[in-house]
Amino acid sequence: MPGTRMGRATVGLPRGAAVEAWSATAAQKEAEGPLGGYFDRVLSEDLMGEKTWEMAEARMSMETVRRCLEKARLQPDQVDALLGGDLINQLMVTNLAARDLGMPFLGLYNACATMAEALAAGAMLVEGGCMGRVVAAASSHFSSAERQYRAPLEMGGQRTPSSQWTVTGAGAMLLTAPDLMETKPAAYVRCVTLGRVVDLGVRDTTNMGAAMAPAAAETLQQHFTDTNRTPADYDLILTGDLGRVGLSLLHELMAERGMPLDPERTSDCGVRIFSEAQEVEAGGSGCGCSASVLCSEIMGLFAEKKLHRVALMATGALLNSISVFQGETIPSIAHLVVLEAE
Amino acid sequence: MPGTRMGRATVGLPRGAAVEAWSATAAQKEAEGPLGGYFDRVLSEDLMGEKTWEMAEARMSMETVRRCLEKARLQPDQVDALLGGDLINQLMVTNLAARDLGMPFLGLYNACATMAEALAAGAMLVEGGCMGRVVAAASSHFSSAERQYRAPLEMGGQRTPSSQWTVTGAGAMLLTAPDLMETKPAAYVRCVTLGRVVDLGVRDTTNMGAAMAPAAAETLQQHFTDTNRTPADYDLILTGDLGRVGLSLLHELMAERGMPLDPERTSDCGVRIFSEAQEVEAGGSGCGCSASVLCSEIMGLFAEKKLHRVALMATGALLNSISVFQGETIPSIAHLVVLEAE
Repeated sequence: MPGTRMGRATVGLPRGAAVEAWSATAAQKEAEGPLGGYFDRVLSEDLMGEKTWEMAEARMSMETVRRCLEKARLQPDQVDALLGGDLINQLMVTNLAARDLGMPFLGLYNACATMAEALAAGAMLVEGGCMGRVVAAASSHFSSAERQYRAPLEMGGQRTPSSQWTVTGAGAMLLTAPDLMETKPAAYVRCVTLGRVVDLGVRDTTNMGAAMAPAAAETLQQHFTDTNRTPADYDLILTGDLGRVGLSLLHELMAERGMPLDPERTSDCGVRIFSEAQEVEAGGSGCGCSASVLCSEIMGLFAEKKLHRVALMATGALLNSISVFQGETIPSIAHLVVLEAE
Repeated sequence: MPGTRMGRATVGLPRGAAVEAWSATAAQKEAEGPLGGYFDRVLSEDLMGEKTWEMAEARMSMETVRRCLEKARLQPDQVDALLGGDLINQLMVTNLAARDLGMPFLGLYNACATMAEALAAGAMLVEGGCMGRVVAAASSHFSSAERQYRAPLEMGGQRTPSSQWTVTGAGAMLLTAPDLMETKPAAYVRCVTLGRVVDLGVRDTTNMGAAMAPAAAETLQQHFTDTNRTPADYDLILTGDLGRVGLSLLHELMAERGMPLDPERTSDCGVRIFSEAQEVEAGGSGCGCSASVLCSEIMGLFAEKKLHRVALMATGALLNSISVFQGETIPSIAHLVVLEAE
């Protein structure tokens, strides 16, 4: 039977959802970072010739999905559904991208965990036989996010050392039922652990890493419990955008729980995408951070057979500007998907 | 094999997702309407003793899910996932409800089509075997929505005849794999047609019905094409919240397409929930509109064996305040789920 439940929150996918194609787009700043060579396309300027940042992000999202499908020589109407989201109120960006693409559309939102949410839901729909092909997609844009969540860019506010820099980037991944594949895929989604909302009372919106680390620890511990695996079973445990502060906290939390993580085999998309010299404080963030790192460097390493089993665990801070004004703490969530070469 | 694809956008669910339990909450105004007797709980006042409307809506959402689970004598940790959303930026309401419930959480957003989106995704996950039990949930609150999308309530702005009144209400439905059921359920989700984003250029934010009707017509026509069914195959075709203006347009559009709808067997949740005397102009709207009508009157009629096959098609207007300020037209979407007694 497809979709084997493994404990409380984990679903094993014995047939698996094949990663048929992937694509990532990023902006100049991201391209100047350590992963610059892996992006399919680099924006020449953040507005992409559009009148607003939101419209530019929508075009980036749409074009990234199209490029992903082109690699598989597919048209949008040959795919059963688009699952995805972004950070802008009411998923403005992905709504507009979905309008241009004309694909059946399920809008998803778990903040910066949205790419993992889309991969998890999409892979389970493929595994169960209800979908043959789905695209999981997520995007973020520094300028559209900064003015929505923080302050006008023109203000030039100072940044704290624990703050993170929203990645301008998008990633799209085509997940396909294995029986539809004509060639051997670089990887399969083999397992999914869904996260619960965790909130330990952090209120500092300039320290998302601290808010999200407990959710990451919770999901990772649940995953190990459900699967009887240990960190050593993974080539790489890759968190979404904890940044340097959150990743350090995750190491502490997992050590406390008796499941210490190997620093050599644990990393974070927000730490990987920028170099320290780029002055992004604790690292990158945004839905587009894990989406663009996964759909560039990580899938590239799978294609080169340098990675065999990766746990991608994207983390999301489920705050908004209203909840902050109302004095609420920051609820967070983390979803984990396991990618395997075989 | 579970999940039989039927044409372009439709998935038949031969095993089906059983509707094990449902619950709906509404406020005083909704309770004074024609469906007043069907709601499980009526709020004594809109703030529910909370400090803000958003916190009240979050409590309403959370308590509606709990009440739904209590009917099935289940605790939240016996359910595999919560799928749901609301209208507030970044799903603030459902995030907070999910925090209290502690269930694995997939946040969804397709505006007022969110309940149908959650039912569609949830039913497919159950059909495919990846989930045993899921809760689909959606909510809206007049006061939290009005100030976010329109203007401060205190302003007392005039309303146009085509405008709709956001329902203060929530609905939750527990979908269960048939082999886990001990009793015969009142209904099963038997078929799902996912919608695409449609935009015919409507810009009038006080006429959502006109913006959403083309999306409804598109999904309904696709459903009939995919399934070889006609409107006569349904006891009831129930749209989400087109209101009187949109429902009238849907009749016109379907007649033009050679698939006229029977007015006796076609209705709209936004039209049903308020009487004309309640001065809500074109009718009700909001994620909570279709969610609360489905999880009160409609499931009540299934339980009484007065309905046998219903197509619930919730419609969503995918605008936000930024897209309106930027002069964008209103993209819309409609998802359809078929509920059957057997």
